[in-house]
Amino acid sequence: MTLNSRDPEGSIARTAKACSNWGRWGEDDVLGTLNFLDEGKRREGAALVSRGVSFSLSQRFDMNGPQKGWRRRTNPVHTMLDTGTDAALGIQGFPHGIGGADDVIVMPLQCSTQWDGLGHIFDHGKAWNGRASEKVVTSEGDLVTGIEHMAAYVAGRGVLLDVGRAVGTGGELPDGFAITEEHLTATAAAHGVTVGRGDIVLVRTGQLARARREGWGDYAGGAAPGLSFTTAGWLHGSEIAAIATDTWGFEVRPNEFEHAFQPLHQVAIPHIGLLIGEMWDLESLAEDCAVDGVYEFWLTAAPLPITGAVGSPVNPIAVK
Amino acid sequence: MTLNSRDPEGSIARTAKACSNWGRWGEDDVLGTLNFLDEGKRREGAALVSRGVSFSLSQRFDMNGPQKGWRRRTNPVHTMLDTGTDAALGIQGFPHGIGGADDVIVMPLQCSTQWDGLGHIFDHGKAWNGRASEKVVTSEGDLVTGIEHMAAYVAGRGVLLDVGRAVGTGGELPDGFAITEEHLTATAAAHGVTVGRGDIVLVRTGQLARARREGWGDYAGGAAPGLSFTTAGWLHGSEIAAIATDTWGFEVRPNEFEHAFQPLHQVAIPHIGLLIGEMWDLESLAEDCAVDGVYEFWLTAAPLPITGAVGSPVNPIAVK
Amino acid sequence: MTLNSRDPEGSIARTAKACSNWGRWGEDDVLGTLNFLDEGKRREGAALVSRGVSFSLSQRFDMNGPQKGWRRRTNPVHTMLDTGTDAALGIQGFPHGIGGADDVIVMPLQCSTQWDGLGHIFDHGKAWNGRASEKVVTSEGDLVTGIEHMAAYVAGRGVLLDVGRAVGTGGELPDGFAITEEHLTATAAAHGVTVGRGDIVLVRTGQLARARREGWGDYAGGAAPGLSFTTAGWLHGSEIAAIATDTWGFEVRPNEFEHAFQPLHQVAIPHIGLLIGEMWDLESLAEDCAVDGVYEFWLTAAPLPITGAVGSPVNPIAVK
Amino acid sequence: MTLNSRDPEGSIARTAKACSNWGRWGEDDVLGTLNFLDEGKRREGAALVSRGVSFSLSQRFDMNGPQKGWRRRTNPVHTMLDTGTDAALGIQGFPHGIGGADDVIVMPLQCSTQWDGLGHIFDHGKAWNGRASEKVVTSEGDLVTGIEHMAAYVAGRGVLLDVGRAVGTGGELPDGFAITEEHLTATAAAHGVTVGRGDIVLVRTGQLARARREGWGDYAGGAAPGLSFTTAGWLHGSEIAAIATDTWGFEVRPNEFEHAFQPLHQVAIPHIGLLIGEMWDLESLAEDCAVDGVYEFWLTAAPLPITGAVGSPVNPIAVK
Repeated sequence: MTLNSRDPEGSIARTAKACSNWGRWGEDDVLGTLNFLDEGKRREGAALVSRGVSFSLSQRFDMNGPQKGWRRRTNPVHTMLDTGTDAALGIQGFPHGIGGADDVIVMPLQCSTQWDGLGHIFDHGKAWNGRASEKVVTSEGDLVTGIEHMAAYVAGRGVLLDVGRAVGTGGELPDGFAITEEHLTATAAAHGVTVGRGDIVLVRTGQLARARREGWGDYAGGAAPGLSFTTAGWLHGSEIAAIATDTWGFEVRPNEFEHAFQPLHQVAIPHIGLLIGEMWDLESLAEDCAVDGVYEFWLTAAPLPITGAVGSPVNPIAVK
Repeated sequence: MTLNSRDPEGSIARTAKACSNWGRWGEDDVLGTLNFLDEGKRREGAALVSRGVSFSLSQRFDMNGPQKGWRRRTNPVHTMLDTGTDAALGIQGFPHGIGGADDVIVMPLQCSTQWDGLGHIFDHGKAWNGRASEKVVTSEGDLVTGIEHMAAYVAGRGVLLDVGRAVGTGGELPDGFAITEEHLTATAAAHGVTVGRGDIVLVRTGQLARARREGWGDYAGGAAPGLSFTTAGWLHGSEIAAIATDTWGFEVRPNEFEHAFQPLHQVAIPHIGLLIGEMWDLESLAEDCAVDGVYEFWLTAAPLPITGAVGSPVNPIAVK
Repeated sequence: MTLNSRDPEGSIARTAKACSNWGRWGEDDVLGTLNFLDEGKRREGAALVSRGVSFSLSQRFDMNGPQKGWRRRTNPVHTMLDTGTDAALGIQGFPHGIGGADDVIVMPLQCSTQWDGLGHIFDHGKAWNGRASEKVVTSEGDLVTGIEHMAAYVAGRGVLLDVGRAVGTGGELPDGFAITEEHLTATAAAHGVTVGRGDIVLVRTGQLARARREGWGDYAGGAAPGLSFTTAGWLHGSEIAAIATDTWGFEVRPNEFEHAFQPLHQVAIPHIGLLIGEMWDLESLAEDCAVDGVYEFWLTAAPLPITGAVGSPVNPIAVK
Repeated sequence: MTLNSRDPEGSIARTAKACSNWGRWGEDDVLGTLNFLDEGKRREGAALVSRGVSFSLSQRFDMNGPQKGWRRRTNPVHTMLDTGTDAALGIQGFPHGIGGADDVIVMPLQCSTQWDGLGHIFDHGKAWNGRASEKVVTSEGDLVTGIEHMAAYVAGRGVLLDVGRAVGTGGELPDGFAITEEHLTATAAAHGVTVGRGDIVLVRTGQLARARREGWGDYAGGAAPGLSFTTAGWLHGSEIAAIATDTWGFEVRPNEFEHAFQPLHQVAIPHIGLLIGEMWDLESLAEDCAVDGVYEFWLTAAPLPITGAVGSPVNPIAVK
C-alpha cells in the first residue's frame, strides 16, 4: 500500500472501506477483533508457559507520568483517606489495636498503560460496527460498547515484535519512524515467531526506554515512532485480536498525512474494531526475550470493567 | 483453635505470635505470602488450562455499587472528557472526520473488587514484617510495601472453595456465618481439590448472589458470612499465597469478639503478610465449576501498579 | 395564572413565551437577570449594613450531605495530601521545623449550596437567549455562558421571604407545598419589606430545618415545598436578579404537571435568564430576622469562576 | 528588625515568640486574627461603598493554571456529567423538552486563588494556638480549626497596597524582591490610606501581570516578589485580620534564609494565627484604584465551608 500524503480524507475513506469488519460478528457485536481470540487460542497460549516466570507490562500509575494537561488528561492523583501515621499516633478510633490505611485515585483512563475501548474513536460520526456515535457515547459513557463487555476475554497468546531491536539502532527507533508491514514481518522472521489470527501483538519501539533515559519530554502526544498508516491492511488481514505499543499513540507521530490526527486510529478502531493498547512497558519482557529467544507467551491484559468506559488502565501480565 | 470472645486483645496477640511470618523472607520483604507463588506454581497453574474458557471475577465499577460513604468510601464516579454526541455534532475540532471520546474515573481503591495491599492494616502500630506503621504509610502513600511491588506476580493456580454450595442452603451462607477450617477442608474434599502452598484460594459464600437478588443493603460493612478468626492458623499453615471472597470484608461480620473490628485482618495482613481479595464476583466461575466439577484453574489477578497504594481494584481472570 | 396539569408542554411553551427575556440585553448576553443588579442596587444594599453582623448561608461541604448518587451526584469527598500527623512524626522533609497540611476536593458542582448557571437547563434544545444548546454546553463545558462570567457581580441587596414562618406551621411548609405569588407577596407584606428590580430574593421553606431534625431522607430530589410553576410571571415581572431557596430544587416537588420534571426551571433559566440558588442554609439568618424584624441586608454570593461551569458551590454572606 | 540569614531556626524561634498570639482569644479559639474583624469594622467597610462597582479578585479555575504537580497539586479538572450536546440530540430521557447540564470538579484546595486555613502550617509540630499538630490535622482533615469555622466572618474593610506600582518599575516588583515594613508603610502613605486592626490587606506585587504576559513559568513555587521575613512584627503589631497577595506563596522567594522553606508562614500561621490569601488577581481592582485614588473598599472573601479543610478556593469580591 502506498500513501498519498496530500489526500488524507480519500485515503482514510478507501482504507476504511477495504478494512471494514462491520457486520462481521453480527449487528450487536461489542467485541470487535477480540472475537478472534477464542478458546483454542487460549489453550495455545497457556501451553507456552514453560518457565513460569511472569512480567508486568505496566508503567506505574502516579504523578510522575507524562501527562501535561492536553485534553484535560492529567497524571493519576493518589491520596490517602487513612494512614499509618494516624495509626501510629492512635487516633483512628478502632478497638484492640487495629489500624488501617485507605486510599483514593483520580485518573483519566488514558493517562498511562491502557486499552482503548471500541468507543474511543469515531470516523465521520460513526462508531464501531457502523453505529451512530451519538447513540453510543454520551455524557453517561459508552452505552453500547463499554469496556466492561471485554472484561473476561483479554487472555491468550501474546507475541512480542521488538522492532526497536530488530530494525533500530541501539534497540530504539527514532521519533517519527513509521513502522511498515515489511518491518513487522521482518521482525517476526528475525525472532522466529509467527503472528496470526487471535494473537495479541506487542510492538516495542524503544521510545519508552529513551523517555526513561532522557525525560518524558513530549512523550504524551509528541513525535514518536509507531505504526505507519499503511499497516492498516495488515492489521485487518492478519486477524490479530489486539495490538499494543510502548508509545503514547500506537501510530507514528507526526502522522503521515498533512494536518492529520491519528488517521490509523480512525480506521483501526471504528472500522476494524481493533483493540489497541498504548503506553505499555515492554522493557523487561523484551530483555528476557532477547536472552532466551522466545517471543511468544501467555498474556493476560484484563481491563477494569468500568461501566461505559471508552478505555481502561491495565496491568498486563506475560508469563513464559 | 477455640476462641475466647471476651479476650480480643489477648487472642489477637497470641494468634499473631503463632502465625507470624516476620523476617521469613528477609528484612526488606515487600511481598509477604506472595513469595509462596513461585515459578513452579505458575507452571502448575498454566497446565490447568484445558478448555480455554475464561471468566472475569470482577464486579462492575460504577455508581451502582454498595458504598454508602463509610470512611469516605464512595462508588466509582466515571465522567467523560469528550463524547460521541460532541463528535456527531462536529464540534471537536479534529481534522478529516476523526472524532474521539475520553474519560476519567474517581474511586476509592477499596470501592469494589480489589486486593488489600500489605500496608492496608496495622497491629498496634506495626505493619507487615514488623515495620513501624508511620515509616510505611504516610500521606504520600505506602513508601515501602506499595501495591506496585506486587504488579508482576499475581498469576498462578487458583482454587475455588464454594462453601456456599457445599455447606450452605440454596448455595448461600447466611449473614453472620463463621467459616471454620473444618468448613474449608470439607468443601475442598467435596470438590475433590487440594489446597496448598502458593495457591490463590477463592472462597464463595453466596452473599453477592443474595445482594444481587435483594439489593445491596449493608453489603459494604454490614453483617456477612466470612472466615472465622479461628482460621488464622490454617491461613498461616497452609502457606497459600492469597485468598479472596465474594464479601466486603473477607472475615465474618459481626466479628466474633465483642466490640472488635476485623480481628482476622489484624493478624492476616501485618503478621502473616497475606494478600486478601474482597468483593470478588465468583458467580459465573462457581456455576461452571458446579457443572464440570473442576475447581482449580489458571488465575491472573494483577493489581494496578499505583505507586504507594495500599490496595488496588482488580479484574481477576480465571481460565479453565 | 392558573395551571392545567394535563397540558405540561403547552403550559410551559405559553409561559416561556410570556416570560422570555431573549434579546433583552443583546445577542451576546451572558448574565441574564444579573443585568438588573446594577451599581445603584449595590449602593442600596451596602447601606443596609447597620449592625455589622454577618451570616454564612452555606451548608457545609462534606460526606454528610444529602446526595445519594442520582445523576452521579455524590457528596463532596475531601482528602488530605499532607497532614499534621505526618508533621508531628517529622517525616515531611521540610527544613527548620516547618510542617504543612494540604488537601483536595472532588465534588459535583450541584452537590450542596450552589448557584445554577445559565447553561444548566435547556428548553427543547435552546439555552439562555435562544442559543442552540449544543453550541453552548459540550463536554468541554459551557463555552458561552460559563459561570465565570458572573464572578464579579453577585453582590447587592438581599431580601429574605420566610414563607415557612409567615405561612407554614411551626415555621415550616410541608413537602409538596406550592408557594404561589400570593404567598410571596403576603410574606413580604408581613415582613414589611419590598421586593423589586435587581434584588436577590431568598425564600425559606423550612425544609432544611426539618431535614436536619429528621435526617436527609429524600432531600436531594424527593418531595419538597417550593415555588409553584405559576410564579413564573412574578419571577419575570418583578425583575429580580436572582432567587434562592433552602431546598434541593427551588420549585415544588412533586411538580405540578403530570410526568413533569422541573418545569419552572425550564422557563426560568433558559427563558427568563434567572440566576437560581439551591440548598442554601437560611436558618441562622432567618432566626435573626425574626428577632429584629429586618428582612433586607447586604448580600454577597460569589460563584467560583470555574471556567465553563454550569453551576458553582457558593458560600453566600449576608451582612445586616 | 534585621535578619541573620545563617540562623534560620533561631530567627524563626525568636520571631515566633515575639509575635505569638497563642491564648489571646482563649484556649478554644479557631479564628486567629479574624477575631480582629468585628462588627464595627464591617460597618466601617460597608460605608466605603460609594459607586457600587464590584470586582472579582479571583483567577479562573481551570486546567490553564500554574500547577505542575509539586506536592501532587494539579490544576482544577472540570468534567461534565450531562451536556447541551446530549440535550440537543434528545437522548437525556427527560419529559416535555427539558434538558440539563451538570458538572464535577476535582481540585487541590491550594490550586488557585485561595485562603490558607489555620491548619495549613505547623512549627515544630505545633499548630495555631499551641495545639499539637497531630491532634489538629489527621487524614480526616482539620478536626479543630477547619476552614468551615471561618465561613461567616471574612467580610469587612479591604485595603489595597499596590507595592508594585508604588515601589516597582512598570508597576511590577522583580522576582526575589523582599517587601519590607518600610515598603508597606511608604505604599500606604503614597495611597493616602491607613491600615489597622481588623483590616484585610491586599498586597499587589505585579507578578501575576507578568506571568500573564510571559507565561506561568515557575509561578507556582518559583522565584517571586513577596513579603520579607522581617515583616512578621508588622503583621503581628498592626493587628490586621488577613493579608493576601497576587503571588503563589505570599512571602518572598527564594526565602531569605539559607535552605529555608516559607519561614514567614511558619511564624504567621501557627503563631500569629493570620489568615493568608494567595494567588489573588488584583489587576482590575488595582487599575481602578490607580484611576480614582481610592484604595479602601468593602471586601467579602468567603471560603467554602469544606469541613476539615486547611484551605479553600475563594472568589473575593471588592465593592467600591
